[in-house]
Amino acid sequence: MFLRNYWYVAAFGHEIGRNLLARTILGDKIVLYRTEDGSPIALANRCCHRQAPLSMGRLIGDTVECGYHGLTFNSTGECIRVPGQKKIPPGAKVRKYPVAERWRWIWIWMGDPDLADEDLIPDHLYRYNDDPEWSCVEGYLHVKADHMLLVDNLMDLSHETFLHSKTIGTVHVAETPAQVAQDDEGVTITRWMLDRPPPPIYDKSGGFSERGETVDRWQIVRFEPPSNCCLDVGVATAGTGAPEGDRSKGLSMRSLNFLTPETVRSTHYFWTFPRDYKLDDEEISKLHAEGFHNTFTEDLVMLEAQQEIMDAHIGQPTVNINADKTTMPVRRMVNKLLNEQELTSI
Amino acid sequence: MFLRNYWYVAAFGHEIGRNLLARTILGDKIVLYRTEDGSPIALANRCCHRQAPLSMGRLIGDTVECGYHGLTFNSTGECIRVPGQKKIPPGAKVRKYPVAERWRWIWIWMGDPDLADEDLIPDHLYRYNDDPEWSCVEGYLHVKADHMLLVDNLMDLSHETFLHSKTIGTVHVAETPAQVAQDDEGVTITRWMLDRPPPPIYDKSGGFSERGETVDRWQIVRFEPPSNCCLDVGVATAGTGAPEGDRSKGLSMRSLNFLTPETVRSTHYFWTFPRDYKLDDEEISKLHAEGFHNTFTEDLVMLEAQQEIMDAHIGQPTVNINADKTTMPVRRMVNKLLNEQELTSI
Amino acid sequence: MFLRNYWYVAAFGHEIGRNLLARTILGDKIVLYRTEDGSPIALANRCCHRQAPLSMGRLIGDTVECGYHGLTFNSTGECIRVPGQKKIPPGAKVRKYPVAERWRWIWIWMGDPDLADEDLIPDHLYRYNDDPEWSCVEGYLHVKADHMLLVDNLMDLSHETFLHSKTIGTVHVAETPAQVAQDDEGVTITRWMLDRPPPPIYDKSGGFSERGETVDRWQIVRFEPPSNCCLDVGVATAGTGAPEGDRSKGLSMRSLNFLTPETVRSTHYFWTFPRDYKLDDEEISKLHAEGFHNTFTEDLVMLEAQQEIMDAHIGQPTVNINADKTTMPVRRMVNKLLNEQELTSI
Repeated sequence: MFLRNYWYVAAFGHEIGRNLLARTILGDKIVLYRTEDGSPIALANRCCHRQAPLSMGRLIGDTVECGYHGLTFNSTGECIRVPGQKKIPPGAKVRKYPVAERWRWIWIWMGDPDLADEDLIPDHLYRYNDDPEWSCVEGYLHVKADHMLLVDNLMDLSHETFLHSKTIGTVHVAETPAQVAQDDEGVTITRWMLDRPPPPIYDKSGGFSERGETVDRWQIVRFEPPSNCCLDVGVATAGTGAPEGDRSKGLSMRSLNFLTPETVRSTHYFWTFPRDYKLDDEEISKLHAEGFHNTFTEDLVMLEAQQEIMDAHIGQPTVNINADKTTMPVRRMVNKLLNEQELTSI
Repeated sequence: MFLRNYWYVAAFGHEIGRNLLARTILGDKIVLYRTEDGSPIALANRCCHRQAPLSMGRLIGDTVECGYHGLTFNSTGECIRVPGQKKIPPGAKVRKYPVAERWRWIWIWMGDPDLADEDLIPDHLYRYNDDPEWSCVEGYLHVKADHMLLVDNLMDLSHETFLHSKTIGTVHVAETPAQVAQDDEGVTITRWMLDRPPPPIYDKSGGFSERGETVDRWQIVRFEPPSNCCLDVGVATAGTGAPEGDRSKGLSMRSLNFLTPETVRSTHYFWTFPRDYKLDDEEISKLHAEGFHNTFTEDLVMLEAQQEIMDAHIGQPTVNINADKTTMPVRRMVNKLLNEQELTSI
Repeated sequence: MFLRNYWYVAAFGHEIGRNLLARTILGDKIVLYRTEDGSPIALANRCCHRQAPLSMGRLIGDTVECGYHGLTFNSTGECIRVPGQKKIPPGAKVRKYPVAERWRWIWIWMGDPDLADEDLIPDHLYRYNDDPEWSCVEGYLHVKADHMLLVDNLMDLSHETFLHSKTIGTVHVAETPAQVAQDDEGVTITRWMLDRPPPPIYDKSGGFSERGETVDRWQIVRFEPPSNCCLDVGVATAGTGAPEGDRSKGLSMRSLNFLTPETVRSTHYFWTFPRDYKLDDEEISKLHAEGFHNTFTEDLVMLEAQQEIMDAHIGQPTVNINADKTTMPVRRMVNKLLNEQELTSI
């Protein structure tokens, strides 16, 4: 069961073009392409005639011709041609999903089309992807695990200490309690680690150690449903006022993550990493792209193993720890929304 | 659920010899071999003792010795030896399936053995395989899809226009309505395309274009249960009387197909392609063997994708088009026979 | 369903060390390691917090740190550290399985820990593994079949004649009836083949044929639950009193087998082959190690095929033969114990 009346990330913009891309989202088989004017289109990837996947057909202008018997659908999903006959049978159409392109991504609305409002795309979280004052690397992983395990992973960064000790994890993360704040739109987790040695990934760019400085480090994680997990992370020279809002002596990054369920047991993990420093430094960009791919792959391996153990122990109880104060409010919010959706659709 | 009281094609004759061949047919595990006098034999591939597959044993004369504990069965399926004891336990036998060899193929009767009558093998459909006035190429494909999807595929040739546009498909096929005739034994689909440019596959042999001729082209498809799909196809110089029965100025081929269910989701696809012209032309034979293998592989790819989509959307409605007049009578006939079988076996 | 209150072989001793080994036993996910003093430890391979596999964490001294969020467990399974908090949540522990190391193997107790008594390890069956008067080769196979099919296989050696005709099987095995004796602790199968040509595997070492001698050959198989199958096999010069107990003119081997269920459809097959002759002959050791690996691989191939056929024919009846007098008492004993276990746990 998935939250339906939300925008989900379907693809990177550069993945969609004048070809037919098959992708499964929330269990739905979908075909994605662009019209001749460049607009992204998402249709059910299932011909209404004999269920052949439209992605195996041909893109002709703005229309899709089924590769099996030649039924042709326009970009609203209406069948406009049936070979050998003039009359289009009633009901000959395929579902069209509302889509929008914003912040490098193709967004898809998986619920009632009448409710699809592009203003609901969380610009405030993702605008850094395209902001000229930020420089961005990006990536994608296919993870064979429930997307909520990925949400848990990103909300509770205490795992960095253990799973990512080679890159971004230090002992301080797990030892520093986080503050939790909830509002109607989401959950915010805030962790400040003051006056600490800088983690390697920042030190290379910031030169703190060279100057004999320690840093104030922050991790501010924002969750908004259905599965936006956006991190505001960075460091500033210790004592220069970062906790109070002055980041002028620091470096900021955003770790922007969207976890799109493919099925109940698999996830499309879309991520970007904008930074606000050394925007044109290719070496840092390469370092970030490779570094975060490797770090997230450490997550992938753990999460797939976790999923496998969970599937072998369905119904067995677990124990919560203090760090779960960061994940439990998110789980409760999502469950509440799922219940409301269930009741609404009765 | 499958139609049981019918002959099915189990194998090409050349596949069966003095070895033990394991094959699953209608979900039944079967072992096939030839006796010393060359007669084909089909037994259940499951020792009655501890269910070891007999195909892993030894063929000794006309008998099969189980490779695990040595029980030996004669070619009627009776156990004739149990190592270490003289008395054969009551009930020690394996099911024997009636088989017959005809028209290059080994036929197997999957229902009540008392009803197995070799006269029921549809000689009228397949005699071309061995006819000296015809020259024949053949092939086999294993398709991971319900055999009825393959039957649909062969009954509704309108798909040639879209799926096989590189070889046998022209725009005319899908645009030309077919005539449907049903009788007690089967369904016949007839399509005539008059005064058209010849498709490449015939033109090479017939030289029509060279002489500036167009052709009358026919496709006459015969279905008989359980899954015989036999095509009489060809072209003749336009206006020379082919529609009225005079094919003397033309070329004829038969596309003879038997779709044997392996399981409910997989099919043994046996096909032959006899022609009545240039019988000894090896180049044409090679062209046909490769060409139809490639064409049918296009079907295979589509049908397996279609099956996958169908399995992900069980219960979702579909829309029929005019072309389904060619497939629906066949579906109805098979369903009627399945219902009768179900009622009979109560 | 498995017998629980028994010792099972979890691993060869040399497999366990200062690393974390994941293994599934009786369907339970288990992690195995040694403490700093060399003691073997077995814990549930599932963190009580979020079900991450502990085998992906770190061994620190005698404790295991979960690789995801850092919960640390001592060698009794108690959680002794939760990062970021001082209080250990109540119930934070993982199951500890009693283990013992004996006769080259790590034994694990899969039932009620209070009943785990090391005196229940069947020393009388396996002491040859470490006896200085015996020389031992060993091996392991992972078999995708119910462990009871392997038990059947070892109890009814008549299959050697057919499945292992290249190595240890002769026609005499299947033709010679076996004696069956049952007691409270197990079942013993005894087969004597008197005055026969020696099988190749013994003849190389014993030189019987060279001296023109025939042999008296014995196979004494002992089953004890849950799945100990231990063979006392050998040959002696015919007529020198071996049946009466004088083996001084003969060669003895033990084929000691433990079949540990991994799941209901897969088995860890641990085997050793001690012999009492030419203890230091490396060539014979190599011959035995390779020979029995190959022989047991013949079993593996057959048993996996048998399992596949059985799964395709669930509920179909089978026929028993005289040779099943060797397997049926074992099946009955195990079923009786399973029933008693079921009733006890009500």
